[in-house]
Amino acid sequence: MRDVAIIGVGQTKVGEHWDVSLRHLALEPLQAAMADAGVTQADALYVGNMLSGELTGQEHLGALVADFAGLRGIEAFKIEAACASGAAALRMGYIAVAGGMMDIVVVVGVEKMTDTTGPDTTAALAMAADGDHEAAHGLSFVAVNALLMRRYMHEFGYSHQDFGAFAVNAHRNGANNPYAMFQFPVKAERFASAPMICDPVNLLDSSPICDGAAAVVLAPADVARTLNAAPVRIAASAVGTDTVAVHDRRDPLVLDGVALSTRRAFERAGVGLEEIDLFELHDAFGVMAALSLEAAGFADRGQGLRLALDGEIEIDGRVPVATMGGLKARGHPVGATGIYQVVEAAQQLRGLAGANQVEDARIGMAQSIGGSGATVITHILERMD
Amino acid sequence: MRDVAIIGVGQTKVGEHWDVSLRHLALEPLQAAMADAGVTQADALYVGNMLSGELTGQEHLGALVADFAGLRGIEAFKIEAACASGAAALRMGYIAVAGGMMDIVVVVGVEKMTDTTGPDTTAALAMAADGDHEAAHGLSFVAVNALLMRRYMHEFGYSHQDFGAFAVNAHRNGANNPYAMFQFPVKAERFASAPMICDPVNLLDSSPICDGAAAVVLAPADVARTLNAAPVRIAASAVGTDTVAVHDRRDPLVLDGVALSTRRAFERAGVGLEEIDLFELHDAFGVMAALSLEAAGFADRGQGLRLALDGEIEIDGRVPVATMGGLKARGHPVGATGIYQVVEAAQQLRGLAGANQVEDARIGMAQSIGGSGATVITHILERMD
Repeated sequence: MRDVAIIGVGQTKVGEHWDVSLRHLALEPLQAAMADAGVTQADALYVGNMLSGELTGQEHLGALVADFAGLRGIEAFKIEAACASGAAALRMGYIAVAGGMMDIVVVVGVEKMTDTTGPDTTAALAMAADGDHEAAHGLSFVAVNALLMRRYMHEFGYSHQDFGAFAVNAHRNGANNPYAMFQFPVKAERFASAPMICDPVNLLDSSPICDGAAAVVLAPADVARTLNAAPVRIAASAVGTDTVAVHDRRDPLVLDGVALSTRRAFERAGVGLEEIDLFELHDAFGVMAALSLEAAGFADRGQGLRLALDGEIEIDGRVPVATMGGLKARGHPVGATGIYQVVEAAQQLRGLAGANQVEDARIGMAQSIGGSGATVITHILERMD
Repeated sequence: MRDVAIIGVGQTKVGEHWDVSLRHLALEPLQAAMADAGVTQADALYVGNMLSGELTGQEHLGALVADFAGLRGIEAFKIEAACASGAAALRMGYIAVAGGMMDIVVVVGVEKMTDTTGPDTTAALAMAADGDHEAAHGLSFVAVNALLMRRYMHEFGYSHQDFGAFAVNAHRNGANNPYAMFQFPVKAERFASAPMICDPVNLLDSSPICDGAAAVVLAPADVARTLNAAPVRIAASAVGTDTVAVHDRRDPLVLDGVALSTRRAFERAGVGLEEIDLFELHDAFGVMAALSLEAAGFADRGQGLRLALDGEIEIDGRVPVATMGGLKARGHPVGATGIYQVVEAAQQLRGLAGANQVEDARIGMAQSIGGSGATVITHILERMD
């Protein structure tokens, strides 16, 4: 296996891009990442996307985006793993470069969720759940998380207001991220009074429906330095899966997929919890953030939310999370999110995170979750000195 | 790079499986392939599928199928490249094993096109075309092929009846394939009188809408023999892309993607045209078969159909194609087709093709086309003696 490095990154401001088509959305960060990397060609393009068919009537994104980006002829596919699609595309690119099959791979995550031709976006997102046993009964994705949150509050004695800690942290960080959808802080009181979406999940506890795209360029680490002044090494890439239907889990409040994916990543990178300087976790909902912190090992069972309440998830805390706003404030264009997380972690390790810089960050972890914990993809990035 | 072998294959009879859900459809060939390979575990599962979201409201097939197959925990994604999705999933599995990242990978292609909850299947298939510039104007996939066929007839002076040669060959072979959807021969006269679908494409010139699934298990070639008595080596795996919109091509009757993909495959395998004992091509429509034969180099421009008329595509001809019925008679469950082609080619090389056996077949080529030539994936298989 060869060491693999990220040699270029690109991202579009997350938002409602009503005037931009799917292929245009993918183009901007792809070109930015290639310019950052200093390359004009690639061996392959892998596109992470979940909803292009359902929401914009377009599959076949690999060849479509490759051609539009001036890369006609190269190998190109779309990779899908629900909300972890972007990370899955990165995983495939990593495998291709690490194994020696390819030298330069461009990975772009893109999702267009507004101005769609399809059905209701909430219905489309339910395709990440078990269609026969969850979605068919009307269980939306927000509803799954509402049930988990209610159970978490019941089991561990937290109040609804406690969950505000994740939102406040995410928005504080998003306020300093020019690519974030919501660039403003929110106070705990505002969380308390936010409109209820699906009790107990309220507006400020949900990641938004939005459009976005982000890209990275991969190369073997040994040639990365010749192409970019500040490459970042991918120290590990790992996947763990679990049941799609939550009712099939041994315990709905334990994310076995997160535990498996994280353990595999730690083993491959040869690092442990204490070496992780920042953790871009999948905070689509507050309860997912809490459960992720627990399953990954940063907190004991029922103590993930406590970590947030104690301020340990802030930029200068023990485990900074959502350092550029996370899914909540930067936004969650589902198939693009996994790449945004990795771009943000890479920028932290490059020392380019501005006001949100985690001091002397050396090792960052990004983790994407498809569904309510069924596909968990972890990437550990390391600064190359 | 390590040599990669197919150590197990499985396939379901293609047809209208109204009583079988998507996950059940994927399960049968997956289990058959693992049993054939003699393995009970795998490092990853890659699922080739195009339309699960649009037609059955289910994405996230990787984790879903992995769990249902008793493989909970393993890495699993869905790969999409329109009608070449199955071949794309195989490509990803090949990269993972060849590069040394994984030892045992299961690849399943699955498509459920009947008994769907989605819109009209023809509309869903149009997502393989350019949504903004083709499908949005009402150009269905059949219509694209009708335009190409009309142009082919005009340019090269063929009659409509001439195209019957592909259908007659496919059905003759499908009649002996227990997994084919249409297990009966058709005469040239029946082709001539078949109902018109989209002039000049008629019913017998179109591959059918159907359900199906097929699977293969991959392993490094050097350990393949310890696992299976008759492994088949993947001598090459290659991808070429072209524009999705046909009007962007330099010539609509030249499939540059096929030429590129085939050339790359030949280079990697170190073989030439004359060594190919059979060619499982993407005969979704007769004109695609003709253009594929030409772009791959088996016939000069305008002579692909002539090859069929001269009987050279039959089992004992110069280039046997659709040896088990092809997309026309075996059927074309789009995301599964690429795996069916490879399973059939592997069975030919194993000498297990029954009445359709190509004598002393040593090297077989399988080629899947996404869209009207935009993604072309070629696998060259070689008998291991």
